[in-house]
Amino acid sequence: MKTLEGSIHNQQTYQRLVHYLSTNEVPTPCLLIDVQTVRERFAALRSALPDAEIFYAVKANPQPEVVRVLVELGASFDVASPGEIQLCLEQGATPDRISYGNTLKKRSDIAFAHEAGVRLFATDSTVDVANIAELAPGASVFCRLLVSSTSATQPFGRKFGCSGDMAVDVLTTAKRLGLDPVGLSFHVGSQHLSPEAWQEQIEESARVAAKLAAEDIPLRLLNLGGGFPASYQEKSPEIGMFGTAIGRCLDTHFGQAMPRLLIEPGRALVAEAGLLRTEVVNVSRRTYEDDVRWVYLDAGRYNGFAECEGEGIRYELRTEHDGKPVGPVVLAGPTCDGDDVMYQKHPYQLPVDLAAGDRVDVLGFGAYSTSFASVFFNGFAPLTALCIDDPGRAC
Amino acid sequence: MKTLEGSIHNQQTYQRLVHYLSTNEVPTPCLLIDVQTVRERFAALRSALPDAEIFYAVKANPQPEVVRVLVELGASFDVASPGEIQLCLEQGATPDRISYGNTLKKRSDIAFAHEAGVRLFATDSTVDVANIAELAPGASVFCRLLVSSTSATQPFGRKFGCSGDMAVDVLTTAKRLGLDPVGLSFHVGSQHLSPEAWQEQIEESARVAAKLAAEDIPLRLLNLGGGFPASYQEKSPEIGMFGTAIGRCLDTHFGQAMPRLLIEPGRALVAEAGLLRTEVVNVSRRTYEDDVRWVYLDAGRYNGFAECEGEGIRYELRTEHDGKPVGPVVLAGPTCDGDDVMYQKHPYQLPVDLAAGDRVDVLGFGAYSTSFASVFFNGFAPLTALCIDDPGRAC
Repeated sequence: MKTLEGSIHNQQTYQRLVHYLSTNEVPTPCLLIDVQTVRERFAALRSALPDAEIFYAVKANPQPEVVRVLVELGASFDVASPGEIQLCLEQGATPDRISYGNTLKKRSDIAFAHEAGVRLFATDSTVDVANIAELAPGASVFCRLLVSSTSATQPFGRKFGCSGDMAVDVLTTAKRLGLDPVGLSFHVGSQHLSPEAWQEQIEESARVAAKLAAEDIPLRLLNLGGGFPASYQEKSPEIGMFGTAIGRCLDTHFGQAMPRLLIEPGRALVAEAGLLRTEVVNVSRRTYEDDVRWVYLDAGRYNGFAECEGEGIRYELRTEHDGKPVGPVVLAGPTCDGDDVMYQKHPYQLPVDLAAGDRVDVLGFGAYSTSFASVFFNGFAPLTALCIDDPGRAC
Repeated sequence: MKTLEGSIHNQQTYQRLVHYLSTNEVPTPCLLIDVQTVRERFAALRSALPDAEIFYAVKANPQPEVVRVLVELGASFDVASPGEIQLCLEQGATPDRISYGNTLKKRSDIAFAHEAGVRLFATDSTVDVANIAELAPGASVFCRLLVSSTSATQPFGRKFGCSGDMAVDVLTTAKRLGLDPVGLSFHVGSQHLSPEAWQEQIEESARVAAKLAAEDIPLRLLNLGGGFPASYQEKSPEIGMFGTAIGRCLDTHFGQAMPRLLIEPGRALVAEAGLLRTEVVNVSRRTYEDDVRWVYLDAGRYNGFAECEGEGIRYELRTEHDGKPVGPVVLAGPTCDGDDVMYQKHPYQLPVDLAAGDRVDVLGFGAYSTSFASVFFNGFAPLTALCIDDPGRAC
């Protein structure tokens, strides 16, 4: 497991992670995060989109050390709740670097954010705007647009955002209630593999901006959301291609009056920094006639592999037997739950020598893993995480 | 919300829960559990299946007060992990009343169980049997049979169990390695609405028992698993009907030499004891043309509604506006996650007056809710739970 032959993953990241694991005993399952990779991904994203402020989507990985590293790099933070606000403040982020990006907020959540000094809020309804006006008077708000069609690996459906004409009403209401209606946002859906995916929404934002201008609300902020991909089993397109495509489209539609630009990357910053070390609990067949083996790991959908719902995210696996003959397996978790199965519809090919007690490493595991984990499902503990910094020390 | 007009749920349970909520402020979301209802459900199940020992499936609700009440009632416990063993022991269960029902066990898990005094293990593979023989020498084992077809609301697929001929080999191996091969188990899948659902597996167990007898392994234990239903939106058949159907089938196939019988009910004991109190975060439309409203609660799939995956479990909802005109809604949770949606494919009908800040109570919420909850997803806390005892005091 020392080399990454045939892998699309970063060799240096892997070497640092495996070096730590070869010299330190960790109880499995354990997520190991290389913060140096987070720095590198941040630099790549900043270079690809130099005109956009990076608001890290904390939900992707709320590990305190990760947030702290991003504070040091000058990132801002997209938060979903009072819990994430508190986390960011504790790690040194000032409230002016926090955007409350969840359109769903209880009145008590808004009051908490305002008390903490947060002054920038996402919204998509007049009810929410009225609450913000009352509990965070004078705050800046941007309205999230509904994204109807999307080719994202993990799309959002219709849960968030509103139509363009409704957005005009929402921001007009905000202005009337004494808020600062700074602009618009959208989110194309998580893990987008096409650099062109932002185009349609940038065009739509320009159309809505024209309507807003007619209401004397100039567009001063455009939040391009997240969706920037990470590499899993297959290499995602270079982040520079996204920057180029988005930049060209922005020039076309906002060249005369470019608003302040925000992006909210999550997995693009942290996924590739993480490696999950697991232990094989068992390898077995259900009948003597089955040619598919079941491989059970000590991590499953309820303690790490939450993103395997629907099998959309397919991680790269490394075992001690790589290079030897392989066969099809169903990959499953350790609980008594029949849905605790990671990959069944599209079986993996894993070495036939794989056996109980072996280690399996899962690459690109740094996003949407630990915080998703169940608190005590089947009596299993949430997933443990450890951060290391160059040259391979725990931090 | 004081009466349960038109509901299939137990009026006394509801009155006790609502009485507590009317006299005590609870922060939402909060699961309230009426332990008196657990006692009543236990009595009903014991009466329906008087010859079967009840091993409560702790995973359904590991709330310490629930486990303690069941210890007092003389129940035994089906556990899935060292964490659940520890919980049961802490609440007063002796190790002879604990069955390690998870076929998936690391070597360290088996050693932990043996050290704790647990002497009864489920298995379905020779690898697991060899580990048990080494780390829990002399223990009793039963082999879980694969259940291929099932009409369960929440089926298990093919994750657990093995074919009959493999089971014979597993138990023969167990005997050879010095274990006590006491019998067989199966699980028809969770939330079964047909009392006849056990029939096919009882027949299969009898066939395998005959093969085992030929190997000089008499069947001394038959574990009928769980699957006994709870009432959600629709009333489940009376538990007595399950007892009658199962008893008749057992008489037919094992009348001459009835083995020791075990059942592993989970939701049938605890689901109807629980009420989730939530707050409406917002009610909004995505476009002016939509006739479906989105109702967002402060609990969602990651802090309570885990069983809404696939929309198989449909809870009964009560609001302050019941009885007034209704319209279709999508019901969703509070996080920034597009999959945090409970009911979308089959919308609920909820009062058109429902608004942000209103309370929504969810009935039958006592199973598979708290322990499933994410540890910090989107910065949200796991679901809080409180237990009350007759006459409505917290316990």
